[in-house]
Amino acid sequence: VSAADEVVLPLRWRDLDAFGHVYHGEYLTLLDEARSRWFGSVLGITDPEAYVVAHLEIDYVSPLAIEDREVRVACALREVGTTSLTVGEVMRAGGREVARSRTVAVLWDRAGARPRPLADDVRQRAASLTVE
Amino acid sequence: VSAADEVVLPLRWRDLDAFGHVYHGEYLTLLDEARSRWFGSVLGITDPEAYVVAHLEIDYVSPLAIEDREVRVACALREVGTTSLTVGEVMRAGGREVARSRTVAVLWDRAGARPRPLADDVRQRAASLTVE
Amino acid sequence: VSAADEVVLPLRWRDLDAFGHVYHGEYLTLLDEARSRWFGSVLGITDPEAYVVAHLEIDYVSPLAIEDREVRVACALREVGTTSLTVGEVMRAGGREVARSRTVAVLWDRAGARPRPLADDVRQRAASLTVE
Amino acid sequence: VSAADEVVLPLRWRDLDAFGHVYHGEYLTLLDEARSRWFGSVLGITDPEAYVVAHLEIDYVSPLAIEDREVRVACALREVGTTSLTVGEVMRAGGREVARSRTVAVLWDRAGARPRPLADDVRQRAASLTVE
Repeated sequence: VSAADEVVLPLRWRDLDAFGHVYHGEYLTLLDEARSRWFGSVLGITDPEAYVVAHLEIDYVSPLAIEDREVRVACALREVGTTSLTVGEVMRAGGREVARSRTVAVLWDRAGARPRPLADDVRQRAASLTVE
Repeated sequence: VSAADEVVLPLRWRDLDAFGHVYHGEYLTLLDEARSRWFGSVLGITDPEAYVVAHLEIDYVSPLAIEDREVRVACALREVGTTSLTVGEVMRAGGREVARSRTVAVLWDRAGARPRPLADDVRQRAASLTVE
Repeated sequence: VSAADEVVLPLRWRDLDAFGHVYHGEYLTLLDEARSRWFGSVLGITDPEAYVVAHLEIDYVSPLAIEDREVRVACALREVGTTSLTVGEVMRAGGREVARSRTVAVLWDRAGARPRPLADDVRQRAASLTVE
Repeated sequence: VSAADEVVLPLRWRDLDAFGHVYHGEYLTLLDEARSRWFGSVLGITDPEAYVVAHLEIDYVSPLAIEDREVRVACALREVGTTSLTVGEVMRAGGREVARSRTVAVLWDRAGARPRPLADDVRQRAASLTVE
Protein backbone atom coordinates (compact mmCIF):
# COMPACT_ATOMS: atom_id res chain seq x y z
CA VAL A 1 0.00 0.00 0.00
CA SER A 2 2.70 2.41 -1.07
CA ALA A 3 0.46 5.35 -1.96
CA ALA A 4 -1.08 5.40 1.48
CA ASP A 5 -0.13 7.35 4.54
CA GLU A 6 -1.45 5.81 7.71
CA VAL A 7 -3.92 7.75 9.83
CA VAL A 8 -3.68 7.05 13.57
CA LEU A 9 -6.89 7.19 15.62
CA PRO A 10 -7.22 6.70 19.39
CA LEU A 11 -9.96 4.33 20.52
CA ARG A 12 -12.57 5.41 23.05
CA TRP A 13 -13.93 3.20 25.81
CA ARG A 14 -17.43 3.77 24.42
CA ASP A 15 -16.31 2.06 21.18
CA LEU A 16 -16.55 -1.23 23.10
CA ASP A 17 -19.69 -3.34 23.15
CA ALA A 18 -20.98 -5.77 25.77
CA PHE A 19 -18.43 -8.39 24.66
CA GLY A 20 -15.62 -6.00 25.51
CA HIS A 21 -14.55 -5.62 21.87
CA VAL A 22 -14.89 -2.60 19.63
CA TYR A 23 -18.42 -2.84 18.18
CA HIS A 24 -18.44 -3.89 14.52
CA GLY A 25 -20.47 -0.84 13.50
CA GLU A 26 -17.95 1.46 15.17
CA TYR A 27 -15.29 0.41 12.67
CA LEU A 28 -17.24 2.42 10.08
CA THR A 29 -16.88 5.56 12.19
CA LEU A 30 -13.14 4.96 12.50
CA LEU A 31 -12.74 4.22 8.78
CA ASP A 32 -14.80 7.31 7.94
CA GLU A 33 -12.55 9.44 10.12
CA ALA A 34 -9.39 8.06 8.52
CA ARG A 35 -10.76 8.30 4.98
CA SER A 36 -11.85 11.90 5.23
CA ARG A 37 -8.50 12.97 6.70
CA TRP A 38 -6.75 11.13 3.88
CA PHE A 39 -9.06 12.76 1.31
CA GLY A 40 -7.93 16.13 2.64
CA SER A 41 -4.24 15.56 3.25
CA VAL A 42 -3.29 13.23 0.38
CA LEU A 43 -5.87 13.92 -2.35
CA GLY A 44 -6.29 17.61 -1.53
CA ILE A 45 -10.09 17.42 -1.61
CA THR A 46 -11.86 20.57 -0.41
CA ASP A 47 -14.35 19.93 2.44
CA PRO A 48 -13.10 16.33 2.66
CA GLU A 49 -15.77 15.20 5.11
CA ALA A 50 -18.53 16.06 2.62
CA TYR A 51 -19.16 12.69 1.02
CA VAL A 52 -21.70 9.91 1.34
CA VAL A 53 -21.04 6.18 1.30
CA ALA A 54 -22.74 4.28 -1.53
CA HIS A 55 -21.23 0.87 -0.85
CA LEU A 56 -19.03 -0.68 1.79
CA GLU A 57 -17.70 -4.16 2.40
CA ILE A 58 -15.59 -5.18 5.35
CA ASP A 59 -13.82 -8.25 6.68
CA TYR A 60 -13.35 -8.31 10.42
CA VAL A 61 -10.00 -10.08 10.76
CA SER A 62 -9.15 -9.82 14.45
CA PRO A 63 -11.03 -8.35 17.45
CA LEU A 64 -10.07 -4.91 18.73
CA ALA A 65 -9.69 -4.49 22.49
CA ILE A 66 -9.37 -1.32 24.53
CA GLU A 67 -5.78 -2.33 25.31
CA ASP A 68 -4.99 -1.63 21.66
CA ARG A 69 -5.49 2.08 22.52
CA GLU A 70 -5.37 3.17 18.86
CA VAL A 71 -5.80 1.93 15.31
CA ARG A 72 -3.82 2.79 12.22
CA VAL A 73 -5.70 3.00 8.94
CA ALA A 74 -3.98 2.87 5.56
CA CYS A 75 -6.03 3.99 2.56
CA ALA A 76 -5.33 3.24 -1.10
CA LEU A 77 -7.26 4.45 -4.12
CA ARG A 78 -8.81 1.70 -6.26
CA GLU A 79 -11.05 3.52 -8.75
CA VAL A 80 -11.91 7.07 -9.70
CA GLY A 81 -15.34 8.04 -11.07
CA THR A 82 -16.89 11.38 -11.96
CA THR A 83 -18.18 12.03 -8.45
CA SER A 84 -16.97 8.91 -6.64
CA LEU A 85 -13.80 7.36 -5.25
CA THR A 86 -13.35 3.69 -4.42
CA VAL A 87 -10.97 3.29 -1.51
CA GLY A 88 -9.35 0.17 -0.09
CA GLU A 89 -8.62 0.38 3.63
CA VAL A 90 -6.54 -1.73 5.96
CA MET A 91 -6.91 -1.24 9.70
CA ARG A 92 -4.11 -2.35 12.03
CA ALA A 93 -3.59 -2.35 15.78
CA GLY A 94 -0.75 -3.68 17.88
CA GLY A 95 1.08 -4.73 14.74
CA ARG A 96 -1.68 -7.04 13.47
CA GLU A 97 -4.36 -6.53 10.84
CA VAL A 98 -7.81 -6.05 12.37
CA ALA A 99 -9.99 -5.24 9.36
CA ARG A 100 -9.89 -4.84 5.61
CA SER A 101 -12.53 -2.85 3.77
CA ARG A 102 -13.52 -1.35 0.43
CA THR A 103 -15.67 1.74 0.25
CA VAL A 104 -17.35 3.62 -2.57
CA ALA A 105 -17.55 7.25 -1.48
CA VAL A 106 -19.55 9.86 -3.43
CA LEU A 107 -18.42 13.45 -2.95
CA TRP A 108 -21.27 15.59 -1.68
CA ASP A 109 -22.29 19.16 -2.43
CA ARG A 110 -23.74 20.39 0.89
CA ALA A 111 -25.52 23.41 -0.53
CA GLY A 112 -27.06 21.60 -3.46
CA ALA A 113 -27.59 18.36 -1.51
CA ARG A 114 -26.36 16.32 -4.47
CA PRO A 115 -23.14 14.64 -5.67
CA ARG A 116 -20.31 16.98 -6.68
CA PRO A 117 -17.73 16.18 -9.39
CA LEU A 118 -14.04 15.81 -8.46
CA ALA A 119 -12.05 19.00 -9.06
CA ASP A 120 -9.51 18.76 -11.90
CA ASP A 121 -6.44 18.85 -9.69
CA VAL A 122 -7.92 16.19 -7.42
CA ARG A 123 -8.71 14.01 -10.42
CA GLN A 124 -5.13 14.31 -11.66
CA ARG A 125 -3.67 13.53 -8.25
CA ALA A 126 -6.12 10.63 -7.86
CA ALA A 127 -5.20 9.16 -11.24
CA SER A 128 -1.53 9.07 -10.27
CA LEU A 129 -2.32 7.41 -6.95
CA THR A 130 -4.71 4.69 -8.12
CA VAL A 131 -3.39 1.20 -7.45
CA GLU A 132 -4.88 -2.21 -8.22
CA VAL B 1 -37.97 -12.89 0.67
CA SER B 2 -40.72 -15.27 1.71
CA ALA B 3 -38.97 -16.84 4.71
CA ALA B 4 -38.50 -13.48 6.35
CA ASP B 5 -40.63 -11.68 8.90
CA GLU B 6 -39.98 -7.99 8.95
CA VAL B 7 -38.60 -6.39 12.10
CA VAL B 8 -39.74 -2.79 12.67
CA LEU B 9 -37.31 -0.41 14.38
CA PRO B 10 -37.96 3.22 15.31
CA LEU B 11 -35.25 5.69 14.34
CA ARG B 12 -33.71 8.04 16.90
CA TRP B 13 -32.78 11.64 16.22
CA ARG B 14 -29.21 10.82 17.23
CA ASP B 15 -29.03 8.39 14.28
CA LEU B 16 -28.73 11.46 12.05
CA ASP B 17 -25.39 12.93 11.05
CA ALA B 18 -24.45 16.49 10.12
CA PHE B 19 -26.04 16.06 6.67
CA GLY B 20 -29.38 15.34 8.33
CA HIS B 21 -29.45 11.72 7.12
CA VAL B 22 -29.07 8.57 9.18
CA TYR B 23 -25.30 8.02 9.46
CA HIS B 24 -24.06 5.17 7.27
CA GLY B 25 -22.44 3.42 10.24
CA GLU B 26 -25.71 3.53 12.17
CA TYR B 27 -27.33 1.20 9.63
CA LEU B 28 -25.14 -1.56 11.10
CA THR B 29 -26.65 -0.97 14.54
CA LEU B 30 -30.15 -1.15 13.07
CA LEU B 31 -29.35 -4.28 11.03
CA ASP B 32 -27.75 -5.88 14.10
CA GLU B 33 -30.88 -5.19 16.12
CA ALA B 34 -33.16 -6.66 13.45
CA ARG B 35 -30.92 -9.68 12.85
CA SER B 36 -30.64 -10.72 16.48
CA ARG B 37 -34.41 -10.42 17.01
CA TRP B 38 -34.92 -12.56 13.92
CA PHE B 39 -32.33 -15.08 15.16
CA GLY B 40 -34.39 -15.44 18.31
CA SER B 41 -37.94 -15.35 16.98
CA VAL B 42 -37.59 -17.18 13.66
CA LEU B 43 -34.53 -19.41 14.08
CA GLY B 44 -35.06 -20.06 17.78
CA ILE B 45 -31.42 -19.35 18.64
CA THR B 46 -30.68 -19.18 22.37
CA ASP B 47 -29.01 -15.90 23.46
CA PRO B 48 -29.57 -14.51 19.94
CA GLU B 49 -27.53 -11.35 20.50
CA ALA B 50 -24.41 -13.41 21.20
CA TYR B 51 -22.72 -13.40 17.80
CA VAL B 52 -19.90 -11.53 16.13
CA VAL B 53 -19.81 -10.21 12.58
CA ALA B 54 -17.08 -11.69 10.38
CA HIS B 55 -18.04 -10.00 7.12
CA LEU B 56 -20.57 -7.43 6.01
CA GLU B 57 -21.33 -5.75 2.72
CA ILE B 58 -23.95 -3.10 2.22
CA ASP B 59 -25.40 -1.02 -0.59
CA TYR B 60 -26.89 2.28 0.49
CA VAL B 61 -29.80 2.65 -1.91
CA SER B 62 -31.68 5.70 -0.67
CA PRO B 63 -31.02 8.17 2.19
CA LEU B 64 -32.94 7.78 5.45
CA ALA B 65 -34.40 10.92 7.00
CA ILE B 66 -35.89 11.44 10.46
CA GLU B 67 -39.30 11.86 8.80
CA ASP B 68 -39.13 8.15 7.98
CA ARG B 69 -39.61 7.55 11.73
CA GLU B 70 -38.91 3.82 11.45
CA VAL B 71 -37.28 1.19 9.26
CA ARG B 72 -38.45 -2.31 8.41
CA VAL B 73 -35.79 -4.98 8.01
CA ALA B 74 -36.44 -8.28 6.28
CA CYS B 75 -33.89 -11.05 6.85
CA ALA B 76 -33.38 -14.16 4.75
CA LEU B 77 -30.94 -17.00 5.34
CA ARG B 78 -28.38 -17.54 2.59
CA GLU B 79 -25.90 -20.06 3.99
CA VAL B 80 -25.48 -22.16 7.12
CA GLY B 81 -22.04 -23.13 8.49
CA THR B 82 -20.97 -24.96 11.62
CA THR B 83 -20.87 -21.82 13.75
CA SER B 84 -21.95 -19.19 11.21
CA LEU B 85 -25.02 -17.92 9.41
CA THR B 86 -24.99 -15.82 6.25
CA VAL B 87 -27.97 -13.49 6.21
CA GLY B 88 -29.32 -11.28 3.44
CA GLU B 89 -31.08 -8.17 4.69
CA VAL B 90 -33.29 -5.61 2.99
CA MET B 91 -34.08 -2.38 4.81
CA ARG B 92 -37.14 -0.38 3.82
CA ALA B 93 -38.69 2.89 4.95
CA GLY B 94 -41.71 4.76 3.66
CA GLY B 95 -42.36 2.01 1.14
CA ARG B 96 -38.97 2.31 -0.58
CA GLU B 97 -35.79 0.26 -0.28
CA VAL B 98 -33.06 2.09 1.63
CA ALA B 99 -30.32 -0.53 1.95
CA ARG B 100 -29.45 -4.06 1.02
CA SER B 101 -26.82 -6.01 2.93
CA ARG B 102 -25.24 -9.42 3.41
CA THR B 103 -23.74 -10.41 6.74
CA VAL B 104 -21.72 -13.38 7.94
CA ALA B 105 -22.52 -13.79 11.63
CA VAL B 106 -20.58 -16.19 13.87
CA LEU B 107 -22.45 -17.39 16.95
CA TRP B 108 -20.52 -16.56 20.09
CA ASP B 109 -20.00 -18.46 23.33
CA ARG B 110 -19.81 -15.68 25.96
CA ALA B 111 -18.30 -17.82 28.70
CA GLY B 112 -15.67 -19.45 26.51
CA ALA B 113 -15.14 -16.30 24.40
CA ARG B 114 -15.07 -18.39 21.23
CA PRO B 115 -17.47 -19.42 18.42
CA ARG B 116 -20.28 -21.79 19.40
CA PRO B 117 -21.81 -24.38 17.04
CA LEU B 118 -25.47 -24.12 15.99
CA ALA B 119 -27.77 -26.29 18.10
CA ASP B 120 -29.31 -29.23 16.22
CA ASP B 121 -32.85 -27.85 16.19
CA VAL B 122 -31.59 -24.48 14.97
CA ARG B 123 -29.60 -26.18 12.22
CA GLN B 124 -32.69 -28.08 11.07
CA ARG B 125 -34.87 -24.99 11.10
CA ALA B 126 -32.13 -23.03 9.34
CA ALA B 127 -31.77 -25.66 6.61
CA SER B 128 -35.47 -25.45 5.82
CA LEU B 129 -35.35 -21.65 5.67
CA THR B 130 -32.27 -21.18 3.51
CA VAL B 131 -33.04 -19.43 0.23
CA GLU B 132 -30.77 -18.51 -2.67
CA VAL C 1 -46.26 13.58 37.45
CA SER C 2 -49.85 14.01 36.32
CA ALA C 3 -49.21 16.24 33.31
CA ALA C 4 -46.90 13.73 31.77
CA ASP C 5 -47.63 11.03 29.28
CA GLU C 6 -45.01 8.33 29.25
CA VAL C 7 -42.98 7.80 26.11
CA VAL C 8 -41.91 4.19 25.54
CA LEU C 9 -38.57 3.58 23.84
CA PRO C 10 -37.06 0.20 22.92
CA LEU C 11 -33.44 -0.33 23.91
CA ARG C 12 -30.84 -1.38 21.36
CA TRP C 13 -28.06 -3.86 22.04
CA ARG C 14 -25.56 -1.18 21.04
CA ASP C 15 -26.77 0.93 23.99
CA LEU C 16 -24.80 -1.44 26.23
CA ASP C 17 -21.22 -0.79 27.24
CA ALA C 18 -18.46 -3.22 28.20
CA PHE C 19 -20.03 -3.75 31.64
CA GLY C 20 -23.19 -5.04 29.96
CA HIS C 21 -25.28 -2.09 31.15
CA VAL C 22 -26.71 0.75 29.10
CA TYR C 23 -23.90 3.32 28.84
CA HIS C 24 -24.49 6.37 31.02
CA GLY C 25 -24.12 8.74 28.07
CA GLU C 26 -26.75 6.81 26.12
CA TYR C 27 -29.40 7.85 28.64
CA LEU C 28 -29.13 11.35 27.18
CA THR C 29 -30.04 10.02 23.74
CA LEU C 30 -33.03 8.21 25.19
CA LEU C 31 -34.13 11.24 27.22
CA ASP C 32 -33.70 13.47 24.17
CA GLU C 33 -35.89 11.15 22.13
CA ALA C 34 -38.61 11.09 24.78
CA ARG C 35 -38.46 14.84 25.40
CA SER C 36 -38.77 15.84 21.76
CA ARG C 37 -41.75 13.50 21.23
CA TRP C 38 -43.37 14.98 24.32
CA PHE C 39 -42.63 18.52 23.08
CA GLY C 40 -44.53 17.66 19.91
CA SER C 41 -47.42 15.60 21.23
CA VAL C 42 -48.17 17.32 24.56
CA LEU C 43 -46.88 20.88 24.14
CA GLY C 44 -47.66 21.12 20.42
CA ILE C 45 -44.25 22.58 19.58
CA THR C 46 -43.52 22.85 15.86
CA ASP C 47 -40.31 21.07 14.79
CA PRO C 48 -40.01 19.61 18.31
CA GLU C 49 -36.55 18.14 17.75
CA ALA C 50 -35.11 21.58 17.07
CA TYR C 51 -33.72 22.51 20.47
CA VAL C 52 -30.35 22.55 22.17
CA VAL C 53 -29.54 21.51 25.72
CA ALA C 54 -28.12 24.26 27.93
CA HIS C 55 -27.98 22.32 31.19
CA LEU C 56 -28.65 18.77 32.28
CA GLU C 57 -28.36 16.94 35.57
CA ILE C 58 -29.04 13.28 36.07
CA ASP C 59 -29.10 10.73 38.87
CA TYR C 60 -28.47 7.17 37.80
CA VAL C 61 -30.67 5.22 40.17
CA SER C 62 -30.52 1.65 38.92
CA PRO C 63 -28.58 -0.02 36.07
CA LEU C 64 -30.38 -0.76 32.80
CA ALA C 65 -29.83 -4.19 31.25
CA ILE C 66 -30.76 -5.45 27.79
CA GLU C 67 -33.35 -7.70 29.42
CA ASP C 68 -35.29 -4.56 30.24
CA ARG C 69 -36.00 -4.31 26.49
CA GLU C 70 -37.53 -0.82 26.78
CA VAL C 71 -37.65 2.25 28.97
CA ARG C 72 -40.59 4.50 29.80
CA VAL C 73 -39.89 8.20 30.21
CA ALA C 74 -42.28 10.57 31.95
CA CYS C 75 -41.70 14.29 31.38
CA ALA C 76 -43.03 17.16 33.49
CA LEU C 77 -42.59 20.86 32.91
CA ARG C 78 -40.78 22.77 35.67
CA GLU C 79 -40.14 26.23 34.26
CA VAL C 80 -40.97 28.20 31.15
CA GLY C 81 -38.67 30.93 29.79
CA THR C 82 -38.77 33.06 26.65
CA THR C 83 -36.94 30.51 24.53
CA SER C 84 -36.35 27.74 27.07
CA LEU C 85 -38.19 24.97 28.85
CA THR C 86 -37.00 23.24 32.01
CA VAL C 87 -38.17 19.63 32.06
CA GLY C 88 -38.05 17.04 34.83
CA GLU C 89 -37.77 13.48 33.56
CA VAL C 90 -38.18 10.12 35.26
CA MET C 91 -37.02 7.00 33.43
CA ARG C 92 -38.45 3.63 34.41
CA ALA C 93 -37.88 0.06 33.27
CA GLY C 94 -39.33 -3.20 34.55
CA GLY C 95 -41.42 -1.28 37.07
CA ARG C 96 -38.45 0.36 38.79
CA GLU C 97 -36.98 3.84 38.51
CA VAL C 98 -33.68 3.87 36.61
CA ALA C 99 -32.89 7.58 36.31
CA ARG C 100 -34.16 10.99 37.23
CA SER C 101 -33.05 14.08 35.34
CA ARG C 102 -33.65 17.79 34.86
CA THR C 103 -32.94 19.45 31.54
CA VAL C 104 -32.93 23.04 30.34
CA ALA C 105 -33.80 22.94 26.64
CA VAL C 106 -33.54 26.02 24.41
CA LEU C 107 -35.75 25.97 21.33
CA TRP C 108 -33.67 26.39 18.20
CA ASP C 109 -34.28 28.24 14.96
CA ARG C 110 -32.56 26.07 12.35
CA ALA C 111 -32.50 28.68 9.61
CA GLY C 112 -31.24 31.49 11.80
CA ALA C 113 -29.04 29.19 13.92
CA ARG C 114 -30.19 30.97 17.08
CA PRO C 115 -32.75 30.46 19.88
CA ARG C 116 -36.41 30.84 18.90
CA PRO C 117 -39.13 32.12 21.23
CA LEU C 118 -42.00 29.84 22.25
CA ALA C 119 -45.12 30.35 20.13
CA ASP C 120 -48.05 31.92 22.00
CA ASP C 121 -50.22 28.81 22.03
CA VAL C 122 -47.28 26.73 23.25
CA ARG C 123 -46.60 29.23 26.01
CA GLN C 124 -50.22 29.08 27.13
CA ARG C 125 -50.29 25.30 27.10
CA ALA C 126 -46.93 25.21 28.89
CA ALA C 127 -48.12 27.57 31.61
CA SER C 128 -51.09 25.32 32.40
CA LEU C 129 -48.84 22.24 32.55
CA THR C 130 -46.04 23.59 34.73
CA VAL C 131 -45.73 21.72 38.01
CA GLU C 132 -43.34 22.18 40.90
CA VAL D 1 -7.62 24.02 38.47
CA SER D 2 -4.02 23.54 39.51
CA ALA D 3 -4.18 19.83 40.33
CA ALA D 4 -5.39 19.00 36.87
CA ASP D 5 -3.48 17.96 33.82
CA GLU D 6 -5.42 18.51 30.65
CA VAL D 7 -6.35 15.51 28.54
CA VAL D 8 -6.52 16.25 24.81
CA LEU D 9 -9.10 14.33 22.75
CA PRO D 10 -9.63 14.56 18.99
CA LEU D 11 -13.21 14.98 17.85
CA ARG D 12 -14.76 12.63 15.31
CA TRP D 13 -17.10 13.70 12.54
CA ARG D 14 -19.68 11.27 13.90
CA ASP D 15 -19.74 13.31 17.14
CA LEU D 16 -21.78 15.90 15.23
CA ASP D 17 -25.56 15.88 15.15
CA ALA D 18 -27.97 17.18 12.54
CA PHE D 19 -27.34 20.78 13.66
CA GLY D 20 -23.67 20.38 12.80
CA HIS D 21 -22.58 20.67 16.45
CA VAL D 22 -21.18 17.96 18.70
CA TYR D 23 -24.24 16.18 20.14
CA HIS D 24 -24.87 17.04 23.80
CA GLY D 25 -24.83 13.37 24.81
CA GLU D 26 -21.45 12.88 23.14
CA TYR D 27 -19.86 15.24 25.66
CA LEU D 28 -20.35 12.48 28.24
CA THR D 29 -18.29 10.08 26.14
CA LEU D 30 -15.54 12.68 25.84
CA LEU D 31 -15.64 13.50 29.56
CA ASP D 32 -15.62 9.79 30.39
CA GLU D 33 -12.55 9.29 28.23
CA ALA D 34 -10.70 12.20 29.85
CA ARG D 35 -11.73 11.24 33.37
CA SER D 36 -10.59 7.64 33.13
CA ARG D 37 -7.22 8.64 31.67
CA TRP D 38 -6.82 11.13 34.48
CA PHE D 39 -7.83 8.48 37.05
CA GLY D 40 -5.00 6.32 35.73
CA SER D 41 -2.27 8.87 35.13
CA VAL D 42 -2.80 11.33 38.01
CA LEU D 43 -4.55 9.29 40.72
CA GLY D 44 -2.82 6.01 39.90
CA ILE D 45 -6.09 4.03 39.95
CA THR D 46 -5.78 0.44 38.73
CA ASP D 47 -8.18 -0.42 35.87
CA PRO D 48 -9.17 3.26 35.68
CA GLU D 49 -12.01 2.70 33.21
CA ALA D 50 -13.82 0.45 35.68
CA TYR D 51 -16.24 2.88 37.29
CA VAL D 52 -19.89 3.76 36.95
CA VAL D 53 -21.44 7.21 36.99
CA ALA D 54 -23.93 7.84 39.81
CA HIS D 55 -24.59 11.51 39.15
CA LEU D 56 -23.62 14.03 36.51
CA GLU D 57 -24.46 17.66 35.89
CA ILE D 58 -23.27 19.69 32.97
CA ASP D 59 -23.52 23.22 31.63
CA TYR D 60 -23.15 23.56 27.90
CA VAL D 61 -21.37 26.88 27.57
CA SER D 62 -20.51 27.16 23.89
CA PRO D 63 -21.22 24.89 20.89
CA LEU D 64 -18.48 22.58 19.62
CA ALA D 65 -17.93 22.45 15.86
CA ILE D 66 -15.87 20.01 13.82
CA GLU D 67 -13.45 22.87 13.05
CA ASP D 68 -12.43 22.71 16.71
CA ARG D 69 -10.77 19.37 15.86
CA GLU D 70 -10.06 18.52 19.51
CA VAL D 71 -11.13 19.30 23.04
CA ARG D 72 -9.02 19.71 26.17
CA VAL D 73 -10.49 18.47 29.43
CA ALA D 74 -9.16 19.54 32.83
CA CYS D 75 -10.22 17.43 35.81
CA ALA D 76 -10.10 18.44 39.48
CA LEU D 77 -11.04 16.36 42.49
CA ARG D 78 -13.86 17.75 44.61
CA GLU D 79 -14.71 14.99 47.08
CA VAL D 80 -13.44 11.56 48.03
CA GLY D 81 -15.72 8.84 49.39
CA THR D 82 -15.16 5.19 50.26
CA THR D 83 -15.83 3.94 46.74
CA SER D 84 -16.57 7.21 44.95
CA LEU D 85 -14.83 10.27 43.57
CA THR D 86 -16.49 13.58 42.75
CA VAL D 87 -14.74 15.25 39.85
CA GLY D 88 -15.14 18.75 38.43
CA GLU D 89 -14.39 19.00 34.74
CA VAL D 90 -13.85 21.91 32.40
CA MET D 91 -13.85 21.30 28.66
CA ARG D 92 -12.15 23.79 26.36
CA ALA D 93 -11.70 24.08 22.61
CA GLY D 94 -10.10 26.80 20.52
CA GLY D 95 -9.18 28.68 23.68
CA ARG D 96 -12.76 29.03 24.92
CA GLU D 97 -14.72 27.11 27.53
CA VAL D 98 -17.30 24.78 25.99
CA ALA D 99 -18.65 22.88 28.99
CA ARG D 100 -18.35 22.60 32.74
CA SER D 101 -19.45 19.47 34.56
CA ARG D 102 -19.44 17.67 37.90
CA THR D 103 -19.49 13.89 38.07
CA VAL D 104 -19.84 11.39 40.89
CA ALA D 105 -17.96 8.26 39.79
CA VAL D 106 -18.16 4.99 41.72
CA LEU D 107 -15.22 2.65 41.25
CA TRP D 108 -16.38 -0.71 39.96
CA ASP D 109 -15.24 -4.24 40.71
CA ARG D 110 -15.72 -6.06 37.39
CA ALA D 111 -15.52 -9.57 38.79
CA GLY D 112 -17.83 -8.94 41.72
CA ALA D 113 -20.06 -6.53 39.75
CA ARG D 114 -20.21 -4.19 42.74
CA PRO D 115 -18.48 -1.00 43.95
CA ARG D 116 -14.83 -1.34 44.98
CA PRO D 117 -13.14 0.76 47.68
CA LEU D 118 -10.30 3.12 46.77
CA ALA D 119 -6.86 1.60 47.37
CA ASP D 120 -4.91 3.20 50.24
CA ASP D 121 -2.29 4.86 48.03
CA VAL D 122 -5.02 6.24 45.77
CA ARG D 123 -6.90 7.59 48.76
CA GLN D 124 -3.77 9.35 50.01
CA ARG D 125 -2.99 10.82 46.62
CA ALA D 126 -6.64 11.84 46.22
CA ALA D 127 -6.71 13.57 49.61
CA SER D 128 -3.73 15.73 48.66
CA LEU D 129 -5.31 16.67 45.32
CA THR D 130 -8.80 17.57 46.49
CA VAL D 131 -9.66 21.20 45.83
CA GLU D 132 -12.82 23.16 46.57
